[in-house]
Amino acid sequence: MNILFYFDIIGTFVFAISGVLTASTKKFDVFGAFIIAFVTALGGGTLRDILLGNFPVVWVRDLNYLYLIMVAFVIALVFKKHIIKLRKTLFLFDTIGIGVFTILGLQKALELGVPAPIAVAMGTISAVFGGVLRDILCGTAPLIFRREIYATPCIMGGMTYLLLLHFTGKTNMIILITALMIISIRLLAVRNGWSLPRVK
Amino acid sequence: MNILFYFDIIGTFVFAISGVLTASTKKFDVFGAFIIAFVTALGGGTLRDILLGNFPVVWVRDLNYLYLIMVAFVIALVFKKHIIKLRKTLFLFDTIGIGVFTILGLQKALELGVPAPIAVAMGTISAVFGGVLRDILCGTAPLIFRREIYATPCIMGGMTYLLLLHFTGKTNMIILITALMIISIRLLAVRNGWSLPRVK
Amino acid sequence: MNILFYFDIIGTFVFAISGVLTASTKKFDVFGAFIIAFVTALGGGTLRDILLGNFPVVWVRDLNYLYLIMVAFVIALVFKKHIIKLRKTLFLFDTIGIGVFTILGLQKALELGVPAPIAVAMGTISAVFGGVLRDILCGTAPLIFRREIYATPCIMGGMTYLLLLHFTGKTNMIILITALMIISIRLLAVRNGWSLPRVK
Repeated sequence: MNILFYFDIIGTFVFAISGVLTASTKKFDVFGAFIIAFVTALGGGTLRDILLGNFPVVWVRDLNYLYLIMVAFVIALVFKKHIIKLRKTLFLFDTIGIGVFTILGLQKALELGVPAPIAVAMGTISAVFGGVLRDILCGTAPLIFRREIYATPCIMGGMTYLLLLHFTGKTNMIILITALMIISIRLLAVRNGWSLPRVK
Repeated sequence: MNILFYFDIIGTFVFAISGVLTASTKKFDVFGAFIIAFVTALGGGTLRDILLGNFPVVWVRDLNYLYLIMVAFVIALVFKKHIIKLRKTLFLFDTIGIGVFTILGLQKALELGVPAPIAVAMGTISAVFGGVLRDILCGTAPLIFRREIYATPCIMGGMTYLLLLHFTGKTNMIILITALMIISIRLLAVRNGWSLPRVK
Repeated sequence: MNILFYFDIIGTFVFAISGVLTASTKKFDVFGAFIIAFVTALGGGTLRDILLGNFPVVWVRDLNYLYLIMVAFVIALVFKKHIIKLRKTLFLFDTIGIGVFTILGLQKALELGVPAPIAVAMGTISAVFGGVLRDILCGTAPLIFRREIYATPCIMGGMTYLLLLHFTGKTNMIILITALMIISIRLLAVRNGWSLPRVK
C-alpha cells in the first residue's frame, strides 16, 4: 500500500499542474485555474466515489488532497515557464498518474465488493475522468474521445491486475507490475503514434 | 414487472445504438464511441439513482447492463450501414425506450418514498438525461432543450400513471397504458411537427 | 435560522429567474427554460449534497423548492419585459442569493462534521455551481472562470464566518454580517471593475 500512497501524491500533484497549464490557454483567472486544477486532479476519484456510493467523497474525508493541490497550484504559477520546458517530464508524470490512479481506483472498487468488470471500469474512470471534466469545464469536447490511446492502457492494465490477483493474491509486486504496464503501453503508444480506429 | 424488464432491455439497447451513431458523426474513436453509448443508455438512470441516494448506481449493482451495451456496441459497429437505413425503426425503438424509462424511473422513485411530483421528475430524468449527457460529452448544447416535444410526453405520462395508480392500484395494465401513451404522444408530435413555444 | 430561511427563498427565486433570462437568449423552448431555471437555482446545493453524501438531495426531500421554482418560472415568463428593465434589482437579488447560499452551504457542511476548509469550499460550491451547470447546459464555457470577481467574495465571507464562529459561537448576527460582507464585496467589485489576475 505504501507504494500507492506515494504514487497517489505524484499523480494528484501532476494532474493539478496539467490543469493549470490547460486553464492558462483559456485565459481563465486564478480562481478558475484553481478549480480546473482541482477538477483535473480529483474529478476522476470523485466520480468513482459517487458511482460506488462511497461518501463523503475522497477529498472531503481527507484534507491533504486540498493542500496538495494548493501547493501544486502555487508551484505551477511561479514556475510556469520552466514547467512548459519540462513538457516531456510532465507527460511522463501524467502517465505515471494514470497508471497509479487506475490501480488505486480498481482496489477501492474491489474493497467495496463490486464485480470485476465494474472494478476495471472504476479504475479507468478514476484515471481519465478528471481530464474529461476539465475539458467540459473548459468548453471543449473531451480530448480522450478523439486522441491517441489513453483509456485503453488503463483497461488492459486493470484486467491484468485482476488476473494476477486471482492467481497470486494481493501484493505490492502486482501493483508495481500493472502500473508499469499501463505506463509503458501509453508511452509506447504516444511514441509510435498508435491510435484507436475511428468510428466513421 | 416482467413487461418493464423486457422494455428496459430494449430501451437500453437502442439508446446505446443511438449513442454510437451520434459518436460516429463526431469522429470519435472506438473507446469514445463506447463511452458515449454507455452514457446515452445509462446516464439518465445513473443520475436518478444519485439524486435519490440509491447506491451503488444501477449498472454497478447489475453487470448485465454492461454486457447489454457491449452487445449493442458491437452490433452497431458491424451493422452500421443497415442501421442507418433503419432510421425510422430506430426512432420507434428510441421512443419506446423513453416511454419505458419514464415508468421505470417513476416506480423506482416511488419505491423510495419520494413525493409524487418528484417521482414524475425522476421518471423524466431517467428517460431524457442520457441524451443530455451524451450531448454535453459531444460538446454541443443539449438538443432536447431546443427540439421537438421530448420531455413533455414523459411528464404527461408520469402524471397519468400516478393518477391511475391512485384509483386502481399498481398493475401491468397501468404500466402498458402510460408507456403507450408517452410513445403515442411523441410519435404524433414528431409526425405533426408539434413543438413547445420558445422563450424569446 | 429564520433569517437564512427567508434568504434561501429569495436566493432560489432570483436564481431561477436569472436562469429563465439566460435560456431566453439561447432560443430554448419552455421545457428547456424550466430545466435551466431549476439547475441554476438548485444545481449548487445539489452538488454540495452529493459531495457530502447528504441524500436524498435537498429538493427531493422538500417539495417546496420545486413549487418555488415553478412560481418564479411563471413570473419570469409573464413579466419578462419588466424584469429585464429591473436588471439592476435582479443583480442585487442575485448577489443576495450568492451571499446567503454561501452561508447556508457552509452551515450544512459544518453540521455534517467536515473540516473547516472543506466547509468553505462547500459554501462556495452551493453559491456558484448552479451558474456553472447552467453555462454547461447552455453550451458555453462557464462565465465565472473568466469574469469579474464572483467566487472570491464567497471564499472570503466563508472564512470570516468560521473565524467569528470560533470566537463568538453561532448567532444570527454572524450570519447577517458575513452574508452582508459577501454581498458588499461583490457589489464593490462589479462597480469598480475589480477582477482577478488572469493566468496567461
